Formats: sequence, C-alpha cells, structure tokens
Amino acid sequence: MNYGIVLKVLGIILLIESFLMVPSYIISVFTKGNDASAFLFTILLTALIGVVLASRKKVHHRIIARDGFAIVTLGWIFASILGALPLYLAGNTTTYIDALFEIVSGFTTTGSTILANVEILPRGTLFWRSFTHWIGGMGILVFTLALLPSFGIQGFQIFKAESPGPVAGKIAPRIKDTAKILYVTYIIITLIQVILLLMGGMNLFDSFVFTFGTVGTGGFAPYNSSVGAYPSTYIHLVIGTFMILSGVNFSLYYMGYRGKIRDVFKDEELRLYLIIIVLAVLAIALNLFFTNYDSMGLALRDAYFQVSSIMTTTGYATVDFDLWPSFSKGILLLLMFTGASAGSTAGGMKVIRILVMLKMIKREVGKSFHPRAMMPIKVNGRIMQNETVSGIVSFMALYLFIFVVSSLLIMLEGVNIESAIASVAATLGNIGPGLDFAGPTRNFVYYSQPAKFLFTILMLLGRLELFTVISLIAPRSWRRDV
Amino acid sequence: MNYGIVLKVLGIILLIESFLMVPSYIISVFTKGNDASAFLFTILLTALIGVVLASRKKVHHRIIARDGFAIVTLGWIFASILGALPLYLAGNTTTYIDALFEIVSGFTTTGSTILANVEILPRGTLFWRSFTHWIGGMGILVFTLALLPSFGIQGFQIFKAESPGPVAGKIAPRIKDTAKILYVTYIIITLIQVILLLMGGMNLFDSFVFTFGTVGTGGFAPYNSSVGAYPSTYIHLVIGTFMILSGVNFSLYYMGYRGKIRDVFKDEELRLYLIIIVLAVLAIALNLFFTNYDSMGLALRDAYFQVSSIMTTTGYATVDFDLWPSFSKGILLLLMFTGASAGSTAGGMKVIRILVMLKMIKREVGKSFHPRAMMPIKVNGRIMQNETVSGIVSFMALYLFIFVVSSLLIMLEGVNIESAIASVAATLGNIGPGLDFAGPTRNFVYYSQPAKFLFTILMLLGRLELFTVISLIAPRSWRRDV
Repeated sequence: MNYGIVLKVLGIILLIESFLMVPSYIISVFTKGNDASAFLFTILLTALIGVVLASRKKVHHRIIARDGFAIVTLGWIFASILGALPLYLAGNTTTYIDALFEIVSGFTTTGSTILANVEILPRGTLFWRSFTHWIGGMGILVFTLALLPSFGIQGFQIFKAESPGPVAGKIAPRIKDTAKILYVTYIIITLIQVILLLMGGMNLFDSFVFTFGTVGTGGFAPYNSSVGAYPSTYIHLVIGTFMILSGVNFSLYYMGYRGKIRDVFKDEELRLYLIIIVLAVLAIALNLFFTNYDSMGLALRDAYFQVSSIMTTTGYATVDFDLWPSFSKGILLLLMFTGASAGSTAGGMKVIRILVMLKMIKREVGKSFHPRAMMPIKVNGRIMQNETVSGIVSFMALYLFIFVVSSLLIMLEGVNIESAIASVAATLGNIGPGLDFAGPTRNFVYYSQPAKFLFTILMLLGRLELFTVISLIAPRSWRRDV
Repeated sequence: MNYGIVLKVLGIILLIESFLMVPSYIISVFTKGNDASAFLFTILLTALIGVVLASRKKVHHRIIARDGFAIVTLGWIFASILGALPLYLAGNTTTYIDALFEIVSGFTTTGSTILANVEILPRGTLFWRSFTHWIGGMGILVFTLALLPSFGIQGFQIFKAESPGPVAGKIAPRIKDTAKILYVTYIIITLIQVILLLMGGMNLFDSFVFTFGTVGTGGFAPYNSSVGAYPSTYIHLVIGTFMILSGVNFSLYYMGYRGKIRDVFKDEELRLYLIIIVLAVLAIALNLFFTNYDSMGLALRDAYFQVSSIMTTTGYATVDFDLWPSFSKGILLLLMFTGASAGSTAGGMKVIRILVMLKMIKREVGKSFHPRAMMPIKVNGRIMQNETVSGIVSFMALYLFIFVVSSLLIMLEGVNIESAIASVAATLGNIGPGLDFAGPTRNFVYYSQPAKFLFTILMLLGRLELFTVISLIAPRSWRRDV
C-alpha cells in the first residue's frame, strides 16, 4: 500500500468532516443544547488529526486499485469513529458502541437507530445524525474529489470504490468534474425538496432534516413516529416521490439536463426500477384493500410511501406495516434485497444486478434449445463483459453468504428467525427499519453490544459493496509498496 | 418435437410403472386392504395405455436435447397422474389433487404429506407411496434406460435431463451400462439397510418402507411420528447414516468398488458435503446443549439425525425440531437450500453448486488485487467451462426467483412469512417437512387446493431441476420436427 498518499487523503477527509460539523455546533449553541461542548471538542480534535495527516509532504502520487479501496474504507471508518464522538461525549448514548452504530447508520444511510426515544435529543445532534445521511448518500470521497485538485487517473479508483453499483459511470472526462456535477445535482434536488416541504407547512428545521433523510435515502427522523408525525397526504407524497427520485442513477439527471430525455427513459435499469415500483404498489394496495383497508385511495397512498421507502432503502414509515398481511410484508422484504439503482444514494443489491440475473436466466432457457448458440448479455444495447457479469454474480453470492452467516449469529441472540433475517437485511442493505422485531415502530435498542457491533460492520459492508472492504482483510494489502 | 419416439418411450414407462405397482397390489390382497380393486384397476389401465403407446411402429429414432426434456418431464407427469389413482379411487384422499400431491411428493422424494393421519392407510397404499420414493430417487427414466435396448447416443439426453446436478457423469461408455451400474449399486445399498434394520428388531414391512424413504431420500413413514416411533438409538443411527450415504454421488461408489478409494476422498463435492455435515451437527449440538438439552450425547444424536435428514432433503424426524432455538432452526433452514450431492437421490441446490459459488467469490476477491489475472474455476483439478459456470449461476438465480414468487403466492393464503418460506423451500427443494406451520409434526393438509397444486408443481420443478421442465413451456418445443 502507498501509505503516504493514503494517510494524506485521510487527513483531508477529516479536515472536511470537521468543517461539516460546524453547522450542527452552531445550531447547538443557538438552541443551548447539552451537546455544544462535545461538538466543539470533536471539531477541534478532528481538525487537528486532519492537519497532521494532510500536511505530510513529498508523497508519491501513484496509486493503484488497492490504495483506492484503502482510502475509501479507512476514510469511512475514521469519519465514523470521530463522527460518533459528539453523541457519546454529550451523554446522548449509553456506550460508545451505541454512538458508533448510530453514526455508521447515518453515514451508510441505513437509518436504523439504537435510541429508544429520539425526541429528547438536542437539536444539534438531531441535525448532525441526519446530515450524515446527506454526506454519506452521495459519498464523502466523491465530495473530497470535487474539492481537491485533480488526482488525475488515480481519482477514478477512489470514485469507483465508493460508487454503488457494478459499473461506475464517468459523466465528464475528468473525475473531478464528474464529482462536481453529481454534487451540484444533489444540492439542487435537496433544495427543491426543502422548498416543497416548507410549502406544505413544515418548519425549517424539520424540512432540512427530513430532506437529508430522503435524498440520502437514510431514514433518520426527528420524531419517534417517523414521517407518521405529519398526517398530511401532501407531505407523504413529496417525501415518497423524492425517495423514488433519489433512487435513480444521478448521471441520468445530467443526461436529461443535456436534453437526452429519450435516452433517459430507454435506460433499462430505470425502466425495471419503475416497473417494480408500480407492480409492488398495486399488489400491496390490492392486498390491503381486501384485508385491512376500506379505502382504495388510502391503500394506494400508504402502499406508495412504504414501497418507495423500502425499495430505496430509506426506511421512513407512515404506518406500522408490521401489522400488514404476510403477502404485503413479503413484498417489502423482497424489495429490501432489491434496492434501487446503481449510482443513486440507495443501498441493497441494486436493480441493475437483478436485471443482469434475469437476463442470465433468460439466456439459459434459450440455451436449452440451442446449446451451441452464443448469447451475450446486453444492457442498454451494449454487450456486458464476462468479467462484469461474473463480478455481479460473485457479489450476489457473497451478499447471500454474509447475509446467511450474520443471520445465524443474530439468531444466537434468541430472537426468532424472521426478526434475525429482517434485522440483517435491514443493516446489510442499508435500509433501516425491518419487519417484526426490528419493525418500523421498534428499533435495535434491545440487541446486545456484540450484535450492535456486527450490525455496524454489516452497514459498512453494505454501503461500500463488500469487496472494497474485504480486499483490505488480505495481509498483502498492508505490504508497503514503493 | 419427435412425437413418435416421445410417445413410444412414454408407453414403455407406463408399462414399467404398471409392473412396479404389482407388489403393492399383492400386499393389498394379502392384508385384505380396501385398496385392492383400486390397484388392480390402475394396473390394468396403466398397462393398457402403455401398450397402445409403446406398440407404435416405424418411429424415427433420432432425438435431440428437447426431446430428452420432453420424455423426462412428460414421463414424470404421466407416471404421477396414474400413480395417484389408487389413493383417490380407494377413497384414501378426499380429492384427486390431494392424491396427486401425495404421489408427486413420493416420486420427487419430497415426503410432504396432505394426510392428517397416515396410520389408518391400508398396507398396500403405505407400501406404494414409499416405493415411489425408491423409484423416483434414482429415476424412473434411468430404470427404463437400464432395461431397454440401447438408445445409443440419444439415451444420454434423457439421462442428463433426469440426473440431479449440473454435470451428468457417465461411468461406463454406454449409457445403458451406466444406468445398470447405478441401479445395481442402489439395490445393494437398499438391501444392506433392510438387513441392518431387521437386525435392530424392526419388522419386515417397516424395514422395507423406511429403507425406501431413506435411500430415496424421500421421508414418507408409516407412522405419524415418523422415525420417532422407534426410540432405539441404533435405528436412528442406521437411518441417519444411510441418509448421508444416499446423499453421496452414486458414481463415487462405483469408483470405490473399482479400487480408487483415494480418488473418492479427493472429490471436492464429497469433502465439502462431509464438512458441512460435521460443522452443522457440532453447531446444533452445542446450541442444544446450552439451551434445551442436558446431555451432550443426546444432543449430538438428535443433531446428527436431523442434519442428515434435512441436508439430504429426506425429511424424517426423531424430534419436533420446531421447538429448537432459532439458531439451530436457522441452520436447518439453510441446509434445506444446500441439499446434498449431485448424482445422488437428494434434492436441494446441490453441494457442487455451492462449491462453485464459493470459488467464484474467492476468485472475485482475488481479482480485486490483480484485475487482469485470468483465474479459471477448477473443480477436482479440472477447469470448469464458462458455460457450465454460467449454467450453475442461472440455475441458482432461477431457483431463487421461483422460490420468491411462490412464497409470495403462498403468503396470500394468510400464513406467516416464515411458514410460507419454509413450505416453499420444503417442496421446491424436495425436502418434505419444513419449519413452523409445515413442521415435522404437522403437514400440508390445511392448505387450499390451489396452494397444494402449486406445491405439486414446485416438487416436480425441484426434482427435474427447473430448466428441463421450463424449456417445455416454450411454444416451439411443440412444433413437429422431421
């Protein structure tokens, strides 16, 4: 590993993080929260470590794939370790592991909480945990890339390692420009949602906090009843729709901005994503209408919100869907695994991977008739390389493997099979609230400390898409290059 | 499709089936069962249809892959439709769908039952349903191939379509000899188990019936409490061990018979199969010892039996494992998916496919360091063709897809998610008793008729490994060739 450049970039990330904590500190000071000094201390500590690391001179700039993985994984881990301090130091969590769980849940846009009652948290802390969704959604490294002088070709390794999905799309020739375009799009969508929520009568603080949770597809809310605290159908529709918008590959917005609207809607991943949403909403609404609901309109509204929330792995809830019939719950459980699009802020396996798997099934059926035919897998009219296809397959296999082993470990906690499966799916897929034990109205507070630590690791594995993290486990990653 | 040869072979299969029903008829006559005339009628009807179809002359012998698929799928469907008649005609099931479910459960070696009380069944019927396990375990087509004059190269298509697992292994150059060797091995293993059970004090009828269920990895028992009706540890160990032996690729026995013992134990699938069994038994025994059990010895005994039973997809039970802690139940649920070896009588996904998936994960981790390295997947020292690997992947994807869609449909019955998942896993994987609702002491009797029909289809899809059946759905399969 090229330690020089890795440590230098880590320093820059921490410097940026310390600046990003300032708004929370200001809110804390103005609202006279008990967390003001905790924020100030953390900001200074983070900045100090950042300065020390970033001021290294004479670093050797050539980095390879594994350095990119190291920068991203370590960057996320360090940012989480320091970002968790304000919660713990101000006494808003009992243990440091709890604080770490909460902040990793924030950065990874999971949205699961170990807090039994979020409404007693000071405003600065409420703002910070939701702001971590926003930062983590588009990626702290992508943010760094947009600000820093160009890393040249090496920047792509970092970008690729942090981007969700099997293929990282460069929009502009320079990775720095790609990062800038992505963040500008992200900021515009964020501001539009804030304005729409304000128009619906939501106050400024809540509008920002809910918007961070929505566009980052995170799910932290300032109320125990999540979005259910606002009974307004308008608010449900705005948040529901912006969750779906945040589950779209962000490069498609830039494509649309440049006038290629028809190409946008030809995108196969987008199509499948929208088709799944429509089918899931209809199936659940009908199921609800024939069981728990009297009004088809209300059934559609609630189905729409919950499907958007779970499929984009946000985790907001307007109703306790744990009381819904098995069929509806089963569909939601399934959407947890699917996730939304690659290149969005959402978690899960990503629709593109499901698309490729469906195409592989289709090819295999075709092959049973024409055993000797060559049938390459095409996505958006382009042949997908065998390498990419087998990468997708291995990803899904590893995902299932980690899912299964973790579920077994969680079962040792004594919870039932359904709860264990749902909690692991909720953290590994960065969804947040799961079904049953970890349902929308309940949370992770009752799990043991080791279980919470395991969930913390699963959230990071899910956000960084497994291989980025796992490749660091191999001893040769730590050998000094040069 | 080459209708001539397809119908002719179907006729031969039915003729063989009518002969295979004779022992049940004789038992029925001697025990004065209410099912004697039902057996006689079915034997005559089956033989009549068989003779009509088989007596076609001047058939064109050239067959292709899709004809092989058609022969196998239709052969299984026709044999089931007629094989179900004795149960229905003698009034031992209420509806014909129930009888069909029961016999398909038999032929596919699933072992799930829709009978609330099997102990009131006449002896002939008890014998017949267990005998279908034995016939279906090694395959009715393989039996046909062993008896018929050689089909030449075409026989291999049929053999391949009926053999469980991704690669069908020819032991002898001629497929007819391979089929004979397999059946001779099968009969020897069967006789050894019958003798061992007789030595344990079991009566002759039970010894045969339990042996059919064991070596066919089926699971039908003549008692409601399954193998639990015999409290003897010796009986548990004999049946437990023979289930494991029946989950081994049968061609390895022939390899061992020919003196290549070392090669047998070098087989990677066999090794992984045995490793999984050992780990699962130890994990469950420890879990039981720390929770429900006082004696580690009894915990080991019960863990051994239940692991053998579930992993080989047999479905016998000596205890109600639904009362076990989540962790142990979770492991059993997982083993349901794994299944035993390819080329054995067991169901599930098969260990070889798990092995290939694990190797793909390993390769992908390796590739994240050396992006340009070529790393072929090797099994038993031989490079696996890309075609085979992608076939395995597509199989698993399709398996999950069918699993998920069927589970959702079953959830519409109003059962909880865990029960729906377990029942679908139990039928699609040809295991039999599932967890919770469809647990070892309960059965499928409470499901609706459409649900039972769906389960019947899932059992056939599982036994014939999906693509064989699915390729027949395409309209072009039914176009007349020649």
